[in-house]
Amino acid sequence: MVQTLSPSNATSTKKSSRLTAPIILNSAEVEIMRALRRQGKISRSEISHITGWSKAKASQEIRSLVDKGYLVEDGEGVSQGGRKPRLLRINNQLGYVAGIDMGATSLDIALADVAGSILQRCSEATDVKLPPETVLGRCTELLLELIRAQGGTPDQMLGIGVGVPGPVDFARGVLVAPPLMPEWENFPIRDFFKKTFTAAFVVVDNDVNIMALGEQRAGDAASIDHFIFVKIGTGIGAGIISNGKIHRGSDGCAGDIGHICVDKEGPLCACGNKGCLEAMSAGPAIASKAIDAARNRISPVLSQILESNGGIIRPEDVNAACREGDQAALDIIRDSGQMIGDVLASLVNFFNPSHIFIGGGIANFGNHLLVAIRRAVLHRSLPLATTHLSIKFSRVGSNVGVMGAISLALDYLFVIEDSPHFII
Amino acid sequence: MVQTLSPSNATSTKKSSRLTAPIILNSAEVEIMRALRRQGKISRSEISHITGWSKAKASQEIRSLVDKGYLVEDGEGVSQGGRKPRLLRINNQLGYVAGIDMGATSLDIALADVAGSILQRCSEATDVKLPPETVLGRCTELLLELIRAQGGTPDQMLGIGVGVPGPVDFARGVLVAPPLMPEWENFPIRDFFKKTFTAAFVVVDNDVNIMALGEQRAGDAASIDHFIFVKIGTGIGAGIISNGKIHRGSDGCAGDIGHICVDKEGPLCACGNKGCLEAMSAGPAIASKAIDAARNRISPVLSQILESNGGIIRPEDVNAACREGDQAALDIIRDSGQMIGDVLASLVNFFNPSHIFIGGGIANFGNHLLVAIRRAVLHRSLPLATTHLSIKFSRVGSNVGVMGAISLALDYLFVIEDSPHFII
Repeated sequence: MVQTLSPSNATSTKKSSRLTAPIILNSAEVEIMRALRRQGKISRSEISHITGWSKAKASQEIRSLVDKGYLVEDGEGVSQGGRKPRLLRINNQLGYVAGIDMGATSLDIALADVAGSILQRCSEATDVKLPPETVLGRCTELLLELIRAQGGTPDQMLGIGVGVPGPVDFARGVLVAPPLMPEWENFPIRDFFKKTFTAAFVVVDNDVNIMALGEQRAGDAASIDHFIFVKIGTGIGAGIISNGKIHRGSDGCAGDIGHICVDKEGPLCACGNKGCLEAMSAGPAIASKAIDAARNRISPVLSQILESNGGIIRPEDVNAACREGDQAALDIIRDSGQMIGDVLASLVNFFNPSHIFIGGGIANFGNHLLVAIRRAVLHRSLPLATTHLSIKFSRVGSNVGVMGAISLALDYLFVIEDSPHFII
Repeated sequence: MVQTLSPSNATSTKKSSRLTAPIILNSAEVEIMRALRRQGKISRSEISHITGWSKAKASQEIRSLVDKGYLVEDGEGVSQGGRKPRLLRINNQLGYVAGIDMGATSLDIALADVAGSILQRCSEATDVKLPPETVLGRCTELLLELIRAQGGTPDQMLGIGVGVPGPVDFARGVLVAPPLMPEWENFPIRDFFKKTFTAAFVVVDNDVNIMALGEQRAGDAASIDHFIFVKIGTGIGAGIISNGKIHRGSDGCAGDIGHICVDKEGPLCACGNKGCLEAMSAGPAIASKAIDAARNRISPVLSQILESNGGIIRPEDVNAACREGDQAALDIIRDSGQMIGDVLASLVNFFNPSHIFIGGGIANFGNHLLVAIRRAVLHRSLPLATTHLSIKFSRVGSNVGVMGAISLALDYLFVIEDSPHFII
């Protein structure tokens, strides 16, 4: 089934069109692919050093991978006294992987090669309240456009990582009781994509989990054992890394912090409870408080926005007003930060992370929000848990979700036969 | 250095007196010891089956362990057609391990053999506000009594697991900023025990972490990936298992849920904040509310206890009054349960465990407490996170701490050279 590429094909742009993911390797081969995925280009002797194998054993396994076309030689390294060593890398011509980051109102999609380098990306507005066929159909169209723009064909797609804004049964790849998108419950997302991308292995996870993975693989968290990634947007959720691994929980819904109770007498939330963190401090709550402030003439700036926007204030308008120095807007943003910080203080006592990364649309609101979050956490958590605690915005920015989704897809590209151990 | 025991020593009671922990093995030998620790007595062919090795390879590694005296033959198994197979087990005559479970006011100590079977145990009251030399000196006396009662000597102690009621820097084995026992900060607990038990490897952990380990090794949680063990006593704390492993957090203080804020205007806590869960609902808070009820003549039963006890009501007196049908006592216990349940509801949303086990002195209060906790969790957590959630009392009972401490000590008894991988 596997197209054999000789080493001389290294610089060819020809794509293998007959691979199907996942690609089964032996454990030694997987170890080499894992080293190359982490290190990029390395020599045979470096592979021998990393794996602890003899040069003969390393050369044999490398030859097998080169013969199968998964590795190629690419340039020369620095001489250690003798001949310059030939460098090896993953054959990025094998096919494509895609990352899809679906928010409640936005869609980010990126196409990458199998070495994980992003080739092209696109973003557009969406609405996950639409039927799954509509939203996933649009994802398929965009993926086809991206792959065609690269001169490829749909059967070259080897992996798709999908982040969705709701609780996911990770083993089955379906949403379970998602509050924002009830029509999606148990919808077979994998099968939907497999109809078009027949060779791809599709992995579905919660949107914040893929952000935590993106921070781990492409951001500042590569070597951090325990951290929390908090997404603040239309909703609020957390991705949790414990002992370097994602903690999905027993039903795949770990990190659902948006529905932690902040005020038992607070406003009704979409989940049916009162005073959930999300209902009190996420994007819609910020907008709603701003509309109140505008109507009550507490803030002339917000009143003006309400009028000129035709009766609507968006969260980003509140941010703009805050930047103009509007006190009411600043208070609204600070209040949100404090409520989020109060909840995070409890979670810091419970989980004792060394880092909290903040991302999502509302995170762009900048330092007023971050300072309020930090202040609340420091005020309520135990000193030992906060001495080394860092709370900061994710530096990966809006790419963090698609980076995590691509990384997740790559985890399942080369696997060991009969084993649950995937490349990390 | 290792005393060699031949297989014929299997039933001897002679103890090796020259071993020092940790005992270094190769990775194959550790795999066999791990299998035997889990399974008790098994045959050579079962070891071959579990490890996936050829019979020749398994026999060779087993022979090495028998020659070193770590394994012994003990009886015969069921015939699979031919001769009855000889069974192997860990040589429980190698030495002793001990588990110490130190609460704020109680001390539980057990002595076990290296196969993990408890030989003898003892309990007494203590006060961790005393200097560490006093409390640990008493622990040493008790350990010496236990080991002598078994006919052993201090140099046969190969491992000591110690649980202490405060945050522990696990790598260094010291308490860090412990609110209940400030004098213990950075006290070298390991070195203290090593003076008397020179051959022992000493492991120090938080008291609730060792309870979670005890539940995993001796209770109902053997195959549970994600659970929380909650101790309710003088304080309140949690032990966290994520992906089958203990989650200690970045500073070793994960699970410190006693200082999560329940009421910003609540009573002052020992930690300096107001309205901590512990200050509102643990043992002392229950007793203090009962004294108020007695003084205000809300409860004749509690008033009578207050008088006959000389102005003191203990938490167990409140429980006794509740069992007699006293409404005020019942309300106090229910209130505690609800506050604990409200906090656990947030943690269930965040962590999505499949089980919560409740232990500690106040857990003996029975169903009124448990029902109140369950009701609060079900009321506030998301449906997906509670559909399969089980909240129950630990069935291991008062042994759970020492069982976990012994298990932790055994984790560090046989280790792989140059490796952080210990027997599990």
